[in-house]
Amino acid sequence: MENFPLTLRSLFDRSQSLFAKKEVVSRTSSGIHRYTYADFGRRTKQLSSALQQLGVKPGDRVATFAWNHHWHLEAYFAIPCMGAVLHTVNIRLPLEHLVHILNHAEDRFLLVDETLLPIIERIQDQLTTIEGYIVMTDSQELPPTSLHPVYGYENILNSGDPQYAFIDSLNESAPAGLCYTSATTGKPKGVVYSHRGIYLHSLSIGLADTLGLSERDSVMPIVPMFHVNAWGLPFASVWFGSKQVLPGPAPTPDILLGLIADEKVTIAAGVPTVWTAALKAQEAINADISSLRAVVCGGSAAPRSLIESYEQRLQVPFYHAYGMTETCPLVTVARLKSYQEETSLDEQYDTRAAQGLLVPGLDMKIVGPRGEVAWDGKEMGEILLRGAWVATEYYKDERTQESFQDGWFYSGDIAVIDPEGFVKLVDRAKDLVKSGGEWISSLDLENSLMAHPNVFEACVVGIPHPKWEERPLAFVVLKDAALQAGDKADLLTFLTDKFAKWWIPDDVIFLHEIPRSSVGKFMKRELREQYQAYFTGN
Amino acid sequence: MENFPLTLRSLFDRSQSLFAKKEVVSRTSSGIHRYTYADFGRRTKQLSSALQQLGVKPGDRVATFAWNHHWHLEAYFAIPCMGAVLHTVNIRLPLEHLVHILNHAEDRFLLVDETLLPIIERIQDQLTTIEGYIVMTDSQELPPTSLHPVYGYENILNSGDPQYAFIDSLNESAPAGLCYTSATTGKPKGVVYSHRGIYLHSLSIGLADTLGLSERDSVMPIVPMFHVNAWGLPFASVWFGSKQVLPGPAPTPDILLGLIADEKVTIAAGVPTVWTAALKAQEAINADISSLRAVVCGGSAAPRSLIESYEQRLQVPFYHAYGMTETCPLVTVARLKSYQEETSLDEQYDTRAAQGLLVPGLDMKIVGPRGEVAWDGKEMGEILLRGAWVATEYYKDERTQESFQDGWFYSGDIAVIDPEGFVKLVDRAKDLVKSGGEWISSLDLENSLMAHPNVFEACVVGIPHPKWEERPLAFVVLKDAALQAGDKADLLTFLTDKFAKWWIPDDVIFLHEIPRSSVGKFMKRELREQYQAYFTGN
Repeated sequence: MENFPLTLRSLFDRSQSLFAKKEVVSRTSSGIHRYTYADFGRRTKQLSSALQQLGVKPGDRVATFAWNHHWHLEAYFAIPCMGAVLHTVNIRLPLEHLVHILNHAEDRFLLVDETLLPIIERIQDQLTTIEGYIVMTDSQELPPTSLHPVYGYENILNSGDPQYAFIDSLNESAPAGLCYTSATTGKPKGVVYSHRGIYLHSLSIGLADTLGLSERDSVMPIVPMFHVNAWGLPFASVWFGSKQVLPGPAPTPDILLGLIADEKVTIAAGVPTVWTAALKAQEAINADISSLRAVVCGGSAAPRSLIESYEQRLQVPFYHAYGMTETCPLVTVARLKSYQEETSLDEQYDTRAAQGLLVPGLDMKIVGPRGEVAWDGKEMGEILLRGAWVATEYYKDERTQESFQDGWFYSGDIAVIDPEGFVKLVDRAKDLVKSGGEWISSLDLENSLMAHPNVFEACVVGIPHPKWEERPLAFVVLKDAALQAGDKADLLTFLTDKFAKWWIPDDVIFLHEIPRSSVGKFMKRELREQYQAYFTGN
Repeated sequence: MENFPLTLRSLFDRSQSLFAKKEVVSRTSSGIHRYTYADFGRRTKQLSSALQQLGVKPGDRVATFAWNHHWHLEAYFAIPCMGAVLHTVNIRLPLEHLVHILNHAEDRFLLVDETLLPIIERIQDQLTTIEGYIVMTDSQELPPTSLHPVYGYENILNSGDPQYAFIDSLNESAPAGLCYTSATTGKPKGVVYSHRGIYLHSLSIGLADTLGLSERDSVMPIVPMFHVNAWGLPFASVWFGSKQVLPGPAPTPDILLGLIADEKVTIAAGVPTVWTAALKAQEAINADISSLRAVVCGGSAAPRSLIESYEQRLQVPFYHAYGMTETCPLVTVARLKSYQEETSLDEQYDTRAAQGLLVPGLDMKIVGPRGEVAWDGKEMGEILLRGAWVATEYYKDERTQESFQDGWFYSGDIAVIDPEGFVKLVDRAKDLVKSGGEWISSLDLENSLMAHPNVFEACVVGIPHPKWEERPLAFVVLKDAALQAGDKADLLTFLTDKFAKWWIPDDVIFLHEIPRSSVGKFMKRELREQYQAYFTGN
């Protein structure tokens, strides 16, 4: 039996032989753009050919800095199928991180959206390896820009050969993609995706029990194409011949709902904030979203109430999923086993508010302080992963050794797993409170504190302790600042019903606000540093 | 990204971690046997352990000679997961072929059904490598048999360790299975299945657009487990946690319909003769088959009328598929693209009577006398295949060079392909008539002749011709033998409307019967030899 190489060539070729008539719909700055997979194929080959003329060789990194649209889709295949590496760059990163990753990846060319030119113009002087910029615009005229040398996408495409033959000797282990993920501290870390990894991940999302991606689908990745390959949807859609609907620059909830209605979208994927905003917008505009067979939600945990709202109020099945940059990304999907549908609706939603069941193709261990955890929904451990689409290193980065050991990727996510195998995230490893060899979930305590009627927000941090290594310290912002004094005991009592005694924070500090990062997350590290001597006195 | 090995271990392990409660139902000689995947897993490990105690080592071939049941399913995993090779032997082969393949494969042990013992007893003296026989029976007492040495399956299982640890260093390219396929001439040819091949094939049948195999399914492979791994269904079912219904020894149509009703089978797979017989039986017994979401039909071409009957009369979707021993087997499935459902029902059935669309993961070329054929539904060519689950050789067989060239498997099947990519078989390569550098389908001519009201059956054979290399000669059995004389011209005129002039047979020979093989196929080779001088005169 043949070790026939598993490469993106197979995906591309099948779209050309079987699905030439199917459509790719893109929203661009100038309106709705439509074409077929036949057009996509011809233009993709032209792009490869044009990049080759510019000097791109197998193994070279070529970066994109773009929203979701047909140009980006062409780059998704043109770059890997010529043997080069598609480096999708997150347009929302701070400038210093952009400079770092473009230099660290040693990108030779950068494909950039016309609307995003100003960002790149501000950092171009610091980019040490870029030899040219290609502006994604449908105008034949290049917009005014200080970038140099600069090319128009459509201009270079016209010079490309639509009969260009993709490289025939591609090894399945060869790098196809590169994506950087933010680190807790320090610079973003790069993850390389192999052809084989993307190929197998694409198969995994076509399975009936995961996302069931199909030729019948009209697929809208709301998740950006600069974020873990838009969860792999563009790759799988090309392979299976699904219609694609790419929502373009800065889509608002109204725009997304309009696209769903106009393009009969059957499956759309985004983060919880997108689905929360879309739910609100839908209540106002009542778009015809009856074509939707599923919304996919990942990136961070979806609250149960969001899942219920989609299913009860909008009659749209909600697929809660989990993954990360290092895993291509799909790791789990919260779809019930057939016999779980016999439980009460309440239990079902509880189960589905968890991150779900491991998909076929990956191995997982959940390891706590005493080894692999019991499948009891209670014992906490870190999620360890390995498999065909799990990274084994960070790209040229010594932090590899922290996260990859003994063949496993240490995800940094702390979870419990129930007897049916449903994984539920409870914390990030760095935020866990380690008390006397046991783990306490800061997230669980925070969620409970925030359920108290007087609490506006709450944050729990592990602080060094002379006897227990760490003890939890709670930081609370009250709805009415005047209440403070009497509330400390009340708050702690409020927790007593819900947690073992040793989980209860040793103290509560009232703040006017909890420090947050630029993306709105609690800055626990700052609190930890500020209060590090709270229990030890030094 | 990791080259994590793609082996059957992953399939087995997932069934144990996630689907321990799901059921495997077996019909055995003594009744219906039920257990869970947890039981299956424990017993599978015991079987591996017991085989190891008997001396089986990685790379060794272990044969099965059995119907579809839980013992066979245990062997499906126990043998490959310990690194040995599962050799499934076709119980219907002539004795001389059985002897040949058991010796050729150098099988060390043979697992054999109690009811099939008499067959093996008749050939045991000729088996040169078998060191022991294991009788699959639930009785603790061994049945009387001349086989020696002989073990009871349940007895050796009891000696096996349920904690047995499968081999950890399995390479994905390692052989997992072996199956022999009948050859036109000579001995059967062996095909080795790698772990990687079975793994990827299993993913392919879980895809929404192929069979969509799912945890929600109750899967009944009617196709024997000795025939191309029961089309891969047992492997995929274990991986995805589907309930399995294994219909045991010599199931009749009534038994099959009863199992569908009792076990709420959702998907069942068999050859056209099975589905024809089941259709007839269902009309008599009217079993409750409402659980069926699909019947899968392959092995040979399903007539359009059969597809229509299942869908129109029984309301059961019919998946027409194509494959062969050398391809694990799935190659194509005749499921319509979404936009093809807008054509007339008549066109849809015509399309679906073809073999269908190439599944994701394989490459195909259809090559005729002038190279790759046009996708016009007319130009004929041989189907060439390559991909992760396509063989690259016959096991220790010099006939490899006839069928495997330049990285492609030459299937020997002649097909046309329509503009949408639907493959339709028109003949076997050996039965094509090659006339003046062009190809004529003997099957097309036969089907047309048999549509004539006076014709009982017809067979068309290519006979050497001094000018055209070959010309078609028709052999016809009339319904009323008295008609003969005047009918020759009438028959040829009947064809004139339907085919190009050069397709029309040069002559018609009336016979009382057409010689058939033991499995009921026309023996065209005999006719060809007998009439070889018909046009040349020598």
